[in-house]
Amino acid sequence: DFECALEEVKPAFGVSEEELEAVIQNGIIHFDGIIDDILRSGQLFVDQVRSSTRTPLVSILLHGPPGSGKTALGASIAQASQYPFIKLISPDSMVGFSEGQKVTAINKIFADSYKSPLSVVVVDNLERLLEWTPIGPRFSNAVLQTLLVLFARRPPKGRRLFVIATSSLRPVLTEIGLGEVFDSELRVPPISNIRSLEYVLKEVELFHSSQERKECIRMLEEAGFASTQTDVEEGNGKLRIGVKKLLSMVEMARQEPENVAQRLVGALLGLGM
Amino acid sequence: DFECALEEVKPAFGVSEEELEAVIQNGIIHFDGIIDDILRSGQLFVDQVRSSTRTPLVSILLHGPPGSGKTALGASIAQASQYPFIKLISPDSMVGFSEGQKVTAINKIFADSYKSPLSVVVVDNLERLLEWTPIGPRFSNAVLQTLLVLFARRPPKGRRLFVIATSSLRPVLTEIGLGEVFDSELRVPPISNIRSLEYVLKEVELFHSSQERKECIRMLEEAGFASTQTDVEEGNGKLRIGVKKLLSMVEMARQEPENVAQRLVGALLGLGM
Amino acid sequence: DFECALEEVKPAFGVSEEELEAVIQNGIIHFDGIIDDILRSGQLFVDQVRSSTRTPLVSILLHGPPGSGKTALGASIAQASQYPFIKLISPDSMVGFSEGQKVTAINKIFADSYKSPLSVVVVDNLERLLEWTPIGPRFSNAVLQTLLVLFARRPPKGRRLFVIATSSLRPVLTEIGLGEVFDSELRVPPISNIRSLEYVLKEVELFHSSQERKECIRMLEEAGFASTQTDVEEGNGKLRIGVKKLLSMVEMARQEPENVAQRLVGALLGLGM
Amino acid sequence: DFECALEEVKPAFGVSEEELEAVIQNGIIHFDGIIDDILRSGQLFVDQVRSSTRTPLVSILLHGPPGSGKTALGASIAQASQYPFIKLISPDSMVGFSEGQKVTAINKIFADSYKSPLSVVVVDNLERLLEWTPIGPRFSNAVLQTLLVLFARRPPKGRRLFVIATSSLRPVLTEIGLGEVFDSELRVPPISNIRSLEYVLKEVELFHSSQERKECIRMLEEAGFASTQTDVEEGNGKLRIGVKKLLSMVEMARQEPENVAQRLVGALLGLGM
Amino acid sequence: DFECALEEVKPAFGVSEEELEAVIQNGIIHFDGIIDDILRSGQLFVDQVRSSTRTPLVSILLHGPPGSGKTALGASIAQASQYPFIKLISPDSMVGFSEGQKVTAINKIFADSYKSPLSVVVVDNLERLLEWTPIGPRFSNAVLQTLLVLFARRPPKGRRLFVIATSSLRPVLTEIGLGEVFDSELRVPPISNIRSLEYVLKEVELFHSSQERKECIRMLEEAGFASTQTDVEEGNGKLRIGVKKLLSMVEMARQEPENVAQRLVGALLGLGM
Amino acid sequence: DFECALEEVKPAFGVSEEELEAVIQNGIIHFDGIIDDILRSGQLFVDQVRSSTRTPLVSILLHGPPGSGKTALGASIAQASQYPFIKLISPDSMVGFSEGQKVTAINKIFADSYKSPLSVVVVDNLERLLEWTPIGPRFSNAVLQTLLVLFARRPPKGRRLFVIATSSLRPVLTEIGLGEVFDSELRVPPISNIRSLEYVLKEVELFHSSQERKECIRMLEEAGFASTQTDVEEGNGKLRIGVKKLLSMVEMARQEPENVAQRLVGALLGLGM
Ligand SMILES: Nc1ncnc2c1ncn2[C@@H]1O[C@H](COP(=O)(O)OP(=O)(O)OP(=O)(O)O)[C@@H](O)[C@H]1O
Ligand SMILES: Nc1ncnc2c1ncn2[C@@H]1O[C@H](COP(=O)(O)OP(=O)(O)OP(=O)(O)O)[C@@H](O)[C@H]1O
Ligand SMILES: Nc1ncnc2c1ncn2[C@@H]1O[C@H](COP(=O)(O)OP(=O)(O)OP(=O)(O)O)[C@@H](O)[C@H]1O
Ligand SMILES: Nc1ncnc2c1ncn2[C@@H]1O[C@H](COP(=O)(O)OP(=O)(O)OP(=O)(O)O)[C@@H](O)[C@H]1O
Ligand SMILES: Nc1ncnc2c1ncn2[C@@H]1O[C@H](COP(=O)(O)OP(=O)(O)OP(=O)(O)O)[C@@H](O)[C@H]1O
Ligand SMILES: Nc1ncnc2c1ncn2[C@@H]1O[C@H](COP(=O)(O)OP(=O)(O)OP(=O)(O)O)[C@@H](O)[C@H]1O
Ligand SMILES: [Mg+2]
Ligand SMILES: [Mg+2]
Ligand SMILES: [Mg+2]
Ligand SMILES: [Mg+2]
Ligand SMILES: [Mg+2]
Ligand SMILES: [Mg+2]
Repeated sequence: DFECALEEVKPAFGVSEEELEAVIQNGIIHFDGIIDDILRSGQLFVDQVRSSTRTPLVSILLHGPPGSGKTALGASIAQASQYPFIKLISPDSMVGFSEGQKVTAINKIFADSYKSPLSVVVVDNLERLLEWTPIGPRFSNAVLQTLLVLFARRPPKGRRLFVIATSSLRPVLTEIGLGEVFDSELRVPPISNIRSLEYVLKEVELFHSSQERKECIRMLEEAGFASTQTDVEEGNGKLRIGVKKLLSMVEMARQEPENVAQRLVGALLGLGM
Repeated sequence: DFECALEEVKPAFGVSEEELEAVIQNGIIHFDGIIDDILRSGQLFVDQVRSSTRTPLVSILLHGPPGSGKTALGASIAQASQYPFIKLISPDSMVGFSEGQKVTAINKIFADSYKSPLSVVVVDNLERLLEWTPIGPRFSNAVLQTLLVLFARRPPKGRRLFVIATSSLRPVLTEIGLGEVFDSELRVPPISNIRSLEYVLKEVELFHSSQERKECIRMLEEAGFASTQTDVEEGNGKLRIGVKKLLSMVEMARQEPENVAQRLVGALLGLGM
Repeated sequence: DFECALEEVKPAFGVSEEELEAVIQNGIIHFDGIIDDILRSGQLFVDQVRSSTRTPLVSILLHGPPGSGKTALGASIAQASQYPFIKLISPDSMVGFSEGQKVTAINKIFADSYKSPLSVVVVDNLERLLEWTPIGPRFSNAVLQTLLVLFARRPPKGRRLFVIATSSLRPVLTEIGLGEVFDSELRVPPISNIRSLEYVLKEVELFHSSQERKECIRMLEEAGFASTQTDVEEGNGKLRIGVKKLLSMVEMARQEPENVAQRLVGALLGLGM
Repeated sequence: DFECALEEVKPAFGVSEEELEAVIQNGIIHFDGIIDDILRSGQLFVDQVRSSTRTPLVSILLHGPPGSGKTALGASIAQASQYPFIKLISPDSMVGFSEGQKVTAINKIFADSYKSPLSVVVVDNLERLLEWTPIGPRFSNAVLQTLLVLFARRPPKGRRLFVIATSSLRPVLTEIGLGEVFDSELRVPPISNIRSLEYVLKEVELFHSSQERKECIRMLEEAGFASTQTDVEEGNGKLRIGVKKLLSMVEMARQEPENVAQRLVGALLGLGM
Repeated sequence: DFECALEEVKPAFGVSEEELEAVIQNGIIHFDGIIDDILRSGQLFVDQVRSSTRTPLVSILLHGPPGSGKTALGASIAQASQYPFIKLISPDSMVGFSEGQKVTAINKIFADSYKSPLSVVVVDNLERLLEWTPIGPRFSNAVLQTLLVLFARRPPKGRRLFVIATSSLRPVLTEIGLGEVFDSELRVPPISNIRSLEYVLKEVELFHSSQERKECIRMLEEAGFASTQTDVEEGNGKLRIGVKKLLSMVEMARQEPENVAQRLVGALLGLGM
Repeated sequence: DFECALEEVKPAFGVSEEELEAVIQNGIIHFDGIIDDILRSGQLFVDQVRSSTRTPLVSILLHGPPGSGKTALGASIAQASQYPFIKLISPDSMVGFSEGQKVTAINKIFADSYKSPLSVVVVDNLERLLEWTPIGPRFSNAVLQTLLVLFARRPPKGRRLFVIATSSLRPVLTEIGLGEVFDSELRVPPISNIRSLEYVLKEVELFHSSQERKECIRMLEEAGFASTQTDVEEGNGKLRIGVKKLLSMVEMARQEPENVAQRLVGALLGLGM
């Protein structure tokens, strides 16, 4: 009857495949062990929701600097759950919504989730959903109160829900009272050593030869960036870039085939300015 | 004619059994004498409202840290009263309500309660009903003013009302003027010694053998947590966890059968970080 | 033709007996000479309004700590006036009203009062009517401006009006500009010495024998509370409790017949904590 | 054709006799030379508006402490002008008006005034029209902007307008930018010496014999109040009371025929507390 | 076809002669060379707009203390342009308008101006249009944003527009971001030396004989006011009065024929108090 | 089928030629190498969007002081792209729009852009779109949140979008959280050395002979302005003027043929005052 339930929910709602795929368009590059750790932790929570009777609701937060890959990782965990109900709540689909319309849209997805025996809801980009602005500071209290309740409200008897939220402003969440509501938090770090960076460059085939790539890496080392995580911990290196921004720089550099390495190094150094 | 009144109110309103049961889903674990004290005090107020002619209205506040069990205890006291009218006012059922709709909904339940000779209303999670935000600070003054009046307004002649409110932000209540309105306050403490914690672990059967459980307790003692309340008072131990959060950690730990003790201890230590 | 006017106003409005009685449900206990002084002063103003042609409008303020008996005393003075028009404006009957609705309701009662040759309007609990909140601070400026005008606006020719307002936040009234508008102010003090307290205990028959009551009083004296007003003025004693709260404590204590004195003393000591 | 114009305006508008009389109900007592000065200055402006072609608009401000007689004096000057259009704009007739309704009502009266060759508009109690509150501070900017424009806008060709405004919060007017808009300002002082006070007591016949009155005056002198304006200027005496409040105290004292002097002195001393 | 265009616009809009004349009712008195300089500069801008193809939009600001004659001078420049479209945007005609109505009205006039080949729009009294209040400070951001755009938006191809704005709060314009938007600024000074003042007195024929006038001037010199601009620059004299206020004082003084000089001197000295 | 797509979009939307031309009315004067650099960088981004599959969305910011030519340069880059969809979002066409209308209009253009395979949207004058005011500070959070989402939201599969935003308040963008959203930033500098200025003067043919122009330049050098960029870097010269303002000054100077040089020099010196 699990499958039956699955059938039952399909017509009105279900899994939003396309939306999820859109946010992982460039795939997941395993440039560091931490990426696998995050995906594995996600899987454990998926299992807990499926099996424990005492915790029909589990909510986690993926947080990290802008462009570090939170959305892509959250969507990947959700997709891998294979639950019958998987939905993405994203500010992208709420442009121009009034406070009230946002609250209604969010509430609707949670209400829908309660109709499936097993559901996962990805609530992407909390600060944007909350319309956070540092000046004031200001935000939508209506959306905040809605999230505070929905993240803690038990689904009805027999239903189970896994909530994955993302944010790049972790300290703001504490300030506004959203800091204690999650069962667990996972940090998504930026790329901070050259080994990880090199892994990405290789993966996206920026250079025609590994010779060229190595030359580029050497330039970065000379510029003083740390090579490995251990170096970073020893205080070396000022590299700190989200994988999303790195991919953007790679594409810019690609525009000047004769100057790829110089442009990339220049852009990375520009960050530190 | 008491029974008759009871019959009379049933159709339109009455006791919301399901809602109350939902919030006590995991039962009440008697991990400490204080739990029994709270339930007994509750019973005394129930008796007072039933018998004293001079106090047809009694209101109390259950306060304590997040997840300490306020809602479950409040609902338990209400359920045990066996009054003909028992209702739960909770933000869970008001998601997306405007200020005005909240005020109307709250007012409606109090108005309904006046139709029964004996009523108990549990007003759960005051800070969420008030849409409290520390930044600003901001909250719904309309809801606040409504509660200030309703918590102090005598029921009509011949009617009696017992109000049980809960909050995890006691100091905020004072700040906004809700501090003086209650006839009495009961504090719901977090679990703060290992004996209480062990009691819970036993009750939920986290370990297959008492041997394993004891090993886990030993690890916690080594980590420096206080064993008994007396130890706590002597300044030892930094344990401070709501029973709700503890139950959540227990279920997470259960996911890794080979590592239960380590995960639980890790999670408990993580709190102090 | 005075009686005729009285008849004339009856249909549409008049004296709201029930409302007034409701707020004096527990009667007036004459635990101190000051209570009689207040009632006598009230009577003098009632006479002035009836007789002086130069002051067709007189407004007074009853102020004092929460639960000191302001509402009951104000209602008593109004009731004793035997004017043909006596109305109570109270936040109790305005739950859920918008600012505009409050202003309309208040304005309506004053307009009605102008139809009677002699009227008294009790405006109870100014801070609640104003929706005052210390945080911000915030309040309804629309209600404030309405009261500022109504408390000072002369009734039409041939009509006379006595306004009795109550508040437990006297300093706030000054802050917001409501401090100068009254012709006179009467302070309603809390119970601050054991003699007054004993008077109340006797009146409400908390103890079965005067022996028991005296024993209780002795315990309070030992606890350091002042016996008489003179003691209080000499700096002794920390008793300071509104008669309303005292009556509530008395009823709680009554629930444990074996422990009445201990519970009462404990509750009174709890205040000072 | 002046008379003809006068006839012309009567039906739709004109002189609001009743309203003006209502605010001077207790007459003008000439307790000090300054009262006559104010009335004479008023008359001069009345003449200027009537005769000068370069100043078809003149606006003045009567300011002074609460109850000093501003409204009564402003109304007296207006009444004495014998212009065909005389109107009172007062918060008394705007209770419950929204900001917009106030602006419309005020604007309407000015628009009406432009239909008469000669008009005087008394704008009473600016702070109340502006809904001023010291906390915030807050006020109706819509009303303020309306007054700022109307007080400076020239009437159409051939029309002349005299504006008399009153306020007891002169410094607030400066703060909000209403300080420079008037062509002239007249200060209405409180009663500050015993001679003026005695003049009033005599006028209102508080005492049955001049003997009693003199005895009362002696008591006040003994209490340290200054006798004449010269004394005041030399730093003596703390008397400072509006004639309106004095008249109110007189009527209260009258209620206790046996104690008239004591009560009056007590009330006057109470001011200084 | 220039004349044709002129004809074309007449029906729906065109030159608002009456409005312009109304604000120059008392004419322009050439009491100082600066007055001619301002008028000449205005004429130069009028020529530039007519002839230069690169600057189809020119905007200037006339600023100076209250009553210094900004509106009259702005209107004079506009009138002298003899453009086919000349309009005055003034708060006088927007009393009681909502923010939105103001924006619409202002926008409408600019839109109309784009239909004429050559237009001049006088935007009078910016601070009042903006509903500026120093407390807060507050103003209509909707009006501000509208003006910021309209003052900088190029008219459509083939159309030319000259904008003349006036304000007596130059520093406020900078604060709110309106300081940089103008192509040029002209300061309209107050009268600050006796020679200019004497010129005005002569022009308005306050005195019956030049003898009397000279006597009055002597009194002012004795009072310490500076005689000429050079004196002013050397630090003498505290005269500082707008021509508008001076004209008002002149008319007041005229009311007491026997005392003209004394009253005028008194009024002028009163300014410095 | 690229051309076909182009055809397809024409009817409902497409390239807004006229609007773009309007903002470049005075052409681009190549007074400095930096101008060419900016245009070349723009072209590189145009190519990247057209060719890279990993970056279907690229957004850049043109920032610099008022009048430095941001809008003209942004429009030039857009025009040169020859994409089938080119639109300008400008506050000029949103005067009088409510917050909601602005959000809808902006959202609409982005939604339209998604229908074309290749699009460029110029979002001109961010601070005005945001209704930014330094006092408060205040701005439209609804517009800000809309831009934050739209500048980062990937177009649907197969669509590519290039966003060019302009602002003269770069620091404000950081303050309100719009600082990190762009893939790249280009600074548009003011004219800061005499060589560039001379280039402009020549181009617009202000002087009849190069002799006159040189004389003018000499006067500026004597006034202490720096001749070349190198001088500027060495700390000389205080010239700092946007090309737009310079063109305006040139036209003013042209009005007085006999005094061209003096007026221009005077105006330029006036800036430094
Ligand atoms: N290891 C990785 N983790 C996450 N994303 C990756 C990884 N490798 C490649 N990517 C790609 O990098 C991009 C990450 O962007 P994503 O939007 O997920 O970042 P984000 O942290 O959510 O950014 P923002 O802070 O702007 O919300 C995606 O396009 C994704 O396909
Ligand atoms: N002794 C106990 N007291 C209260 N709850 C208990 C106890 N033992 C077990 N529980 C269970 O623990 C949970 C307590 O959660 P509850 O929602 O009541 O906490 P809370 O303090 O109201 O939390 P919050 O601060 O989030 O409102 C319930 O599931 C309840 O069944
Ligand atoms: N001497 C007394 N004066 C006033 N009330 C008395 C007195 N004796 C007994 N009472 C009873 O005490 C109660 C006083 O409550 P009341 O509501 O009037 O106090 P309050 O000061 O208005 O309280 P609050 O500050 O909450 O408005 C009433 O029930 C009244 O019947
Ligand atoms: N010399 C006087 N000047 C003014 N009023 C007088 C004088 N003598 C007697 N009165 C009476 O005193 C009262 C003055 O009250 P009025 O309302 O004019 O004072 P006010 O200054 O306007 O008060 P508020 O500050 O409350 O507006 C009136 O009833 C008036 O008839
Ligand atoms: N030289 C002058 N310049 C300007 N106005 C003059 C001059 N001589 C006489 N006047 C008269 O003085 C008055 C100036 O008033 P105007 O309203 O123009 O001043 P303003 O500066 O706009 O005042 P406000 O600051 O109140 O807006 C007009 O009546 C005008 O006819
Ligand atoms: N090199 C140049 N770069 C930009 N604009 C130029 C250049 N040379 C001439 N111009 C002209 O200068 C003017 C620049 O004005 P533009 O509106 O683009 O400036 P802006 O920086 O956007 O101003 P604002 O800060 O007011 O928005 C245009 O008329 C343009 O035709
Ligand atoms: Mg993201
Ligand atoms: Mg709870
Ligand atoms: Mg009360
Ligand atoms: Mg008055
Ligand atoms: Mg003006
Ligand atoms: Mg621009």
